[in-house]
Amino acid sequence: MYTLEQLVNYAKTYGYIYQGSEIYGGLANTYDYGPLGALLKNNIKAAWKKVFCNDEDNVMLDSSILLNPLVWKASGHLDNFSDPLIECKACNQRFRADKIISDFDPTVNTDQMNFLAMEDYIASHHLHCPACGKNNFEHIRSFNMMFQTTQGVVKESGNEIFLRPETAQGIFINFKNILRTTRKKIPFGVCQYGKAFRNEITPGNFIFRTREFEQMELEFFCAPGSEVQWFNYYREKMVNFLINLGIKKTNIQVYDHPKEGLAHYSNATTDLEFNFPWGFDELWGIASRRDFDLNAHAKASGTELNYLDPESNEKYVPYVVEPSLGVERLLLSLLFNGLEDYIVDNEVRTVLHLHPFLAPYKATILPLSKKELGPTAKKIYHSLQELYEVAYDDAGSIGKRYRRSDAIGTPLAITIDFETLNDKCVTVRYRDDMSQKRVKISQLKKIIGALVKL
Amino acid sequence: MYTLEQLVNYAKTYGYIYQGSEIYGGLANTYDYGPLGALLKNNIKAAWKKVFCNDEDNVMLDSSILLNPLVWKASGHLDNFSDPLIECKACNQRFRADKIISDFDPTVNTDQMNFLAMEDYIASHHLHCPACGKNNFEHIRSFNMMFQTTQGVVKESGNEIFLRPETAQGIFINFKNILRTTRKKIPFGVCQYGKAFRNEITPGNFIFRTREFEQMELEFFCAPGSEVQWFNYYREKMVNFLINLGIKKTNIQVYDHPKEGLAHYSNATTDLEFNFPWGFDELWGIASRRDFDLNAHAKASGTELNYLDPESNEKYVPYVVEPSLGVERLLLSLLFNGLEDYIVDNEVRTVLHLHPFLAPYKATILPLSKKELGPTAKKIYHSLQELYEVAYDDAGSIGKRYRRSDAIGTPLAITIDFETLNDKCVTVRYRDDMSQKRVKISQLKKIIGALVKL
Repeated sequence: MYTLEQLVNYAKTYGYIYQGSEIYGGLANTYDYGPLGALLKNNIKAAWKKVFCNDEDNVMLDSSILLNPLVWKASGHLDNFSDPLIECKACNQRFRADKIISDFDPTVNTDQMNFLAMEDYIASHHLHCPACGKNNFEHIRSFNMMFQTTQGVVKESGNEIFLRPETAQGIFINFKNILRTTRKKIPFGVCQYGKAFRNEITPGNFIFRTREFEQMELEFFCAPGSEVQWFNYYREKMVNFLINLGIKKTNIQVYDHPKEGLAHYSNATTDLEFNFPWGFDELWGIASRRDFDLNAHAKASGTELNYLDPESNEKYVPYVVEPSLGVERLLLSLLFNGLEDYIVDNEVRTVLHLHPFLAPYKATILPLSKKELGPTAKKIYHSLQELYEVAYDDAGSIGKRYRRSDAIGTPLAITIDFETLNDKCVTVRYRDDMSQKRVKISQLKKIIGALVKL
Repeated sequence: MYTLEQLVNYAKTYGYIYQGSEIYGGLANTYDYGPLGALLKNNIKAAWKKVFCNDEDNVMLDSSILLNPLVWKASGHLDNFSDPLIECKACNQRFRADKIISDFDPTVNTDQMNFLAMEDYIASHHLHCPACGKNNFEHIRSFNMMFQTTQGVVKESGNEIFLRPETAQGIFINFKNILRTTRKKIPFGVCQYGKAFRNEITPGNFIFRTREFEQMELEFFCAPGSEVQWFNYYREKMVNFLINLGIKKTNIQVYDHPKEGLAHYSNATTDLEFNFPWGFDELWGIASRRDFDLNAHAKASGTELNYLDPESNEKYVPYVVEPSLGVERLLLSLLFNGLEDYIVDNEVRTVLHLHPFLAPYKATILPLSKKELGPTAKKIYHSLQELYEVAYDDAGSIGKRYRRSDAIGTPLAITIDFETLNDKCVTVRYRDDMSQKRVKISQLKKIIGALVKL
């Protein structure tokens, strides 16, 4: 597997991911997705939508990033969405107190420690400032991770708003609207993807933890008592989704949180962890949240957020099962999982093994001669472009062009040679096993269609 | 055409658009897109991407919302992206001074007036406060429309950042990265869609002008001297795109800005205006911006943003043609353009005429009997779902189900009747002319495929 450094270089070299604001010296922890990265992100979202929304009877939502601050009061984000911030008196750098402790001893469960317990631990173990090495900290204080801004032209306290730290709340507050306008019956789910923002004290590991990121969240509403069944259903579906996308089983670890470590409202929480170079780390979480969120918003807003079962005539507040995934984390996992360097004839051959549904380009069109075969190749290119993203490459030797096509994850290389003009056939070469076969031009759409099926 | 009020009601009733944060009394000027609105937004972006990116040799980009503040200094947004703000001394309400003048006399060109000229005009014409009716204003001052926030845990001036007010700058600052990683040759374009934020003093007209919105921007880089040709090429392509999507010619007006009204760097600017209920108003702008943006960023960043032509060996800063469109404005235009109420048998029949590519659902599956035909209908539903968004409706009379399907813009209604069990045929009914035909189940994918072609 690539190291983090190798992967960052790869992503930059091929146009998957650039440093944000690079020509201005960057902006800490921001990234821009180049032509390949933008397409891959698109395809990741499309795959999730296809499997978790279209493939089921779930619906989509696209709610605002800017919400009424009362939403965050009710959800608990305003009071509790914070990290324990500790400042070094000597160098004025700030850190997460829990990180300082777990970096020293990973077996300590900092989730169970309050600020005082953390301060005691840091003092009694003589832990030092990671920046200057001194042992002289301020008291720990709570640091809210929501980005704050001001809406409107009058600077009053009422105009202070927050960038959403998650997409889920937009779904909860629209539960009644969705029920009313879709006439859906419980159980059903609401899917949403979109940007979210968290002012992390210690972001890092490239795009693994960034302050600006994109979530794909599903809130599945079900009858109380059925939540464990649905939790297990989605828990399994998530694993299958990753495996169908080509993530190796050995790269996935399922971590079921022990009951005693769960949030008070949750009766089941599982993390799917991916085998990152720094160890297995969270990729996708699923939580059974019961009626915690709907109840909180019902109480705070004074709006009943319940459901009348048309068959039993029973009224209840639905329970919620929430699988929540970050686009960038899945993208990063797919790159680590799929990138392989092979040595062929004493040269490195880089291949990105990506599911064809996800691959930015489905095929590269390669005319053996720029001039004489260009027109035929362009015709094929434009015809395939009607249905699929395809690339065209007529520069350099055919070997180099194959290598570039493999390296960016394109599943097919389609070579147009002089024989093509006579037999209307082309040579299709498969990225993963380099096998080749000669096929009719008229068969290409069908071949790609079968390949991209998810 | 629907009035604005009728359209707002329609959007709310059917689940296209809800008020943002509604259960908390809303948040001024924010909207959430319900199940239908989310799908329509998705399809609008896909249509734009298909025609302006895939259909050409352009590439995509997905850059960060949070950028280094130096970007906005260089682009001019920090100094000039502002509105003339005027405050009423009597009621403390704030307004746009230019709006007060143009509401009084729409023929006045406020773009040509400085603050003093506007103050003189308001005083000499005795214009009143739109809120309280008094004539007692403060001096006009400049109000920057960028949303400001703070990144990181240390509150220093260096951490003040802005939410991007447009997606274009993310493209300019990545010009060299894109050039390097794609090996593209001039001319080529870079397409990007994504959220942008403008703290408008007077947002309004439903989703026409909102503080949070989504842009679809294309920066087309070309050789100096060729920009007029490319400007005309895209100007025509934009009109054709709208017409292909079904926007009536009479609903579009092309406004070419007179030379004397252009920004100093632009040698051509055109607005495509749509026939909104409040008059023709801007839907889509295209501007020939020459080398203004690349030069500004080259100067400010110290990075050369130029191009070496591999054939002529000439080095130059490319010129830029920029078509810029808002997703929500196009969505609003499509709803106004497509909604029709017909009187049939003394009842109102609402139809949303939407291009099948854009329609949230391509077909509604309607079993005549819930129980006996449900299994067959579900089978057809799931089979079509593999490729397309389709809806399933087995509740209520067939007439009511047709009407709902028409009202939300679904191009096909597919009825499964008892004969279907024998002849493996279904009745396909077309939304626009209500014509019906009996077709084989096995033909359905092909029929939909032909219909959605863009």
